[in-house]
Amino acid sequence: MDYLPALIAELGGLEIAEDPATLRLKSRDFFWFSPLLKRQLEDCRGDVVVRPRNIEEVMKIAAVVAKTRSKITVRGGGTGNYGQAVPLEGGVILDMGALDRVISLSPGVGTFEAGATMLEIDKALAPKGWELRFYPSTRKQATIGGFVAGGAAGAGSCTWGQLSDPGAVLAVDIVTIEEEPRAMTLEGSDVRKVLHAYGINGIIVSVTVPLAPAHPWAERIVAFPTLSEAAAFGQAFTEADGIAKKLVSVFDPRIPPKLGRVGKLVPEGKAAAIVMVSEPQAGAMAEIARLHNGDVVFERGAKEAESAAFEGHGTYGPLYEYTWNHTTLHALKRDPAITYLQVKFPPEHNLEIVNRVASEFGDEVQLHLEFQRRFGRVTCSALPLVAYSTDERLYEVIERIETLGAQVSNPHTYVLDNAGWKRVDAPQPEFKRIADPHALMNPGKLVS
Amino acid sequence: MDYLPALIAELGGLEIAEDPATLRLKSRDFFWFSPLLKRQLEDCRGDVVVRPRNIEEVMKIAAVVAKTRSKITVRGGGTGNYGQAVPLEGGVILDMGALDRVISLSPGVGTFEAGATMLEIDKALAPKGWELRFYPSTRKQATIGGFVAGGAAGAGSCTWGQLSDPGAVLAVDIVTIEEEPRAMTLEGSDVRKVLHAYGINGIIVSVTVPLAPAHPWAERIVAFPTLSEAAAFGQAFTEADGIAKKLVSVFDPRIPPKLGRVGKLVPEGKAAAIVMVSEPQAGAMAEIARLHNGDVVFERGAKEAESAAFEGHGTYGPLYEYTWNHTTLHALKRDPAITYLQVKFPPEHNLEIVNRVASEFGDEVQLHLEFQRRFGRVTCSALPLVAYSTDERLYEVIERIETLGAQVSNPHTYVLDNAGWKRVDAPQPEFKRIADPHALMNPGKLVS
Repeated sequence: MDYLPALIAELGGLEIAEDPATLRLKSRDFFWFSPLLKRQLEDCRGDVVVRPRNIEEVMKIAAVVAKTRSKITVRGGGTGNYGQAVPLEGGVILDMGALDRVISLSPGVGTFEAGATMLEIDKALAPKGWELRFYPSTRKQATIGGFVAGGAAGAGSCTWGQLSDPGAVLAVDIVTIEEEPRAMTLEGSDVRKVLHAYGINGIIVSVTVPLAPAHPWAERIVAFPTLSEAAAFGQAFTEADGIAKKLVSVFDPRIPPKLGRVGKLVPEGKAAAIVMVSEPQAGAMAEIARLHNGDVVFERGAKEAESAAFEGHGTYGPLYEYTWNHTTLHALKRDPAITYLQVKFPPEHNLEIVNRVASEFGDEVQLHLEFQRRFGRVTCSALPLVAYSTDERLYEVIERIETLGAQVSNPHTYVLDNAGWKRVDAPQPEFKRIADPHALMNPGKLVS
Repeated sequence: MDYLPALIAELGGLEIAEDPATLRLKSRDFFWFSPLLKRQLEDCRGDVVVRPRNIEEVMKIAAVVAKTRSKITVRGGGTGNYGQAVPLEGGVILDMGALDRVISLSPGVGTFEAGATMLEIDKALAPKGWELRFYPSTRKQATIGGFVAGGAAGAGSCTWGQLSDPGAVLAVDIVTIEEEPRAMTLEGSDVRKVLHAYGINGIIVSVTVPLAPAHPWAERIVAFPTLSEAAAFGQAFTEADGIAKKLVSVFDPRIPPKLGRVGKLVPEGKAAAIVMVSEPQAGAMAEIARLHNGDVVFERGAKEAESAAFEGHGTYGPLYEYTWNHTTLHALKRDPAITYLQVKFPPEHNLEIVNRVASEFGDEVQLHLEFQRRFGRVTCSALPLVAYSTDERLYEVIERIETLGAQVSNPHTYVLDNAGWKRVDAPQPEFKRIADPHALMNPGKLVS
């Protein structure tokens, strides 16, 4: 840490923290969902946290880091699950949270500073009738820059697909880590150079995304006799092109009891679906649910749902905070021996394979499905709860699920190249040589 | 026509026309796209046209019709192609055009009187940021009631599917043809009792549909070396869940020269696509087009496109007026020997079958494709231009196309049960006995 005094001297006037509590807090994300990552990343610490307030400060930090050959790890809300925000070799932690402005808005498109949270962006958009197309269940904490750097999907994916789809991110502005840092704009398919690169291909300072015109999203919980019926509903409802929807999450009957007060809304022993649907079409959704023996057991109107999300009002938090990887979070709070997997089911056969996986493992694997559009088709992915015993057994489960016809994206590695959601056709290594020529951005995240 | 004097006497105070010019005009629709229907329907005439101004007048007419056992044919804009608005056995023509109010609007849903045109509805919605989810290429003339009674799809189907999809129509109000007419509201899946029933299951007086939040729809024309490449683009672009789109129409290279000034924008010998895409994502669309060797040859921004549609401003009419069955209309204007078919291609194999059909018939069949979502998948239908020689040859072409793996919906019949777009599982005959117990609504439209 010889570089530190010089670096801190150079950064005079910037917001800096070196106290152990802040260093610990800002060196973490939600990697601890994985017992393997927990072991590996628990003790990683940055040496100093710097929180720039504008792009000039970002450029100044980038220059100092390059000159002093410091390591640097960029972080947003720290809501990732793969140690994206964990400095593997110490160094500077760049907390982007103070760059949180809406830079520009016009019909169908918005540009936001990287540190703006998805929730604050949506609050700013709401009066204008627009919204982000998707957000993770961590909408409240997750930043748009972090989502682009490490996210994939979320609420909205049942309509809009995923973040890596063509046109899903229109432009990204970055700053290079060089003695004389450059600001660059990546547009069109060039955004793939930084998409899901865990923030090691330049400092993302702003993001331009297409917006969705906002529907009045009502929330519903539907109870079903079996997971199989709930899954068939999820498929049919997501395939109903004529019903506007934002969220279609399906749960094994053993999962709702792990979801606290919201879970209690589901009668014991029932499978469940949590959906967000355009309020005038909630009745059309319920008709499809009935065809699959589903009963609506909880209804909340769009105004109340928005108020729960935006102001924290109401008896229950926003229902999306019980879906995607928040399901895992709620279960982990009650049972620390639980972990999870990420499973993709091939379109056309997804329900069949869901049923196969569901009947294979007993209590060890409990399915939680998220329905989405993928390249023009409807399928589901799963974030199943898995009872963790040993690493070996976890890998056995992964292998067995793949034998049954699904594809597992391993969420138990912090190495970018190993993670399953990663696109393989993006020209990222080439761009890293341009954006981070001294390889100072969180070394260790790449195999090569 | 013994009933006429009594009927007219009873309808004192209503707007009535009996002159031959009005009777001819109001006894027609666009059935003449079919040489077969032209022969059969050309001389059909109603005896009197009545144009109610409100629901009370509709109820009064229904009562008088029932008492006098007159025949009655309900019409909107008369833009259908199957003689929906043609009185097969004379009688009263009920012109719904004066019932054109927006009854109510709230986020995501609107209720409209049946005679409101789709264009006027969209003009009323635009300042509020909403729009109809789909409209036929005859948006300017077509009424929402007529669309529900006889339409199926249109601009918007690439995103929202079709009118018969669950949730696509939320409610329909009808008036029965009885001595004491009843007003009834059909909701949820009950709307199928009147959907695509050609207006013979009660008088549709208002319609409640879910709305789409409005995107800024830019227009583009893209030229491709071949139909096959244009079709592959159409598929890929429609499958791109992350790009908001309203229209994806694809044309054989021989079709643009039949489309007047808009057609001239396409270089000679090139296949073409007309698309409406959310303006900030037009670049993402163009990147997909490039992958299929497509060049954007015409661009019009969303504001200008809206102004062309809403106010008739600009050098070119709205591009959707060159798609769907407007393509046929433009071609027919230049060559009266042309007719058309309606072809559906099964998902997964649609491009393969498109190529088969395209290479089978030479100049006799020229493909025009419309890409849509159907039950969660992307496929295309075609409204091919067909050089008409004889009825026998037309039926041979239909048979051959079906042998090649596509499905033809015969647009050369005015009988409801025979038309291909018709859903067969709807409880329409049962409902007809309730809504039209004396079978006075355009007899001859049903086989039974």
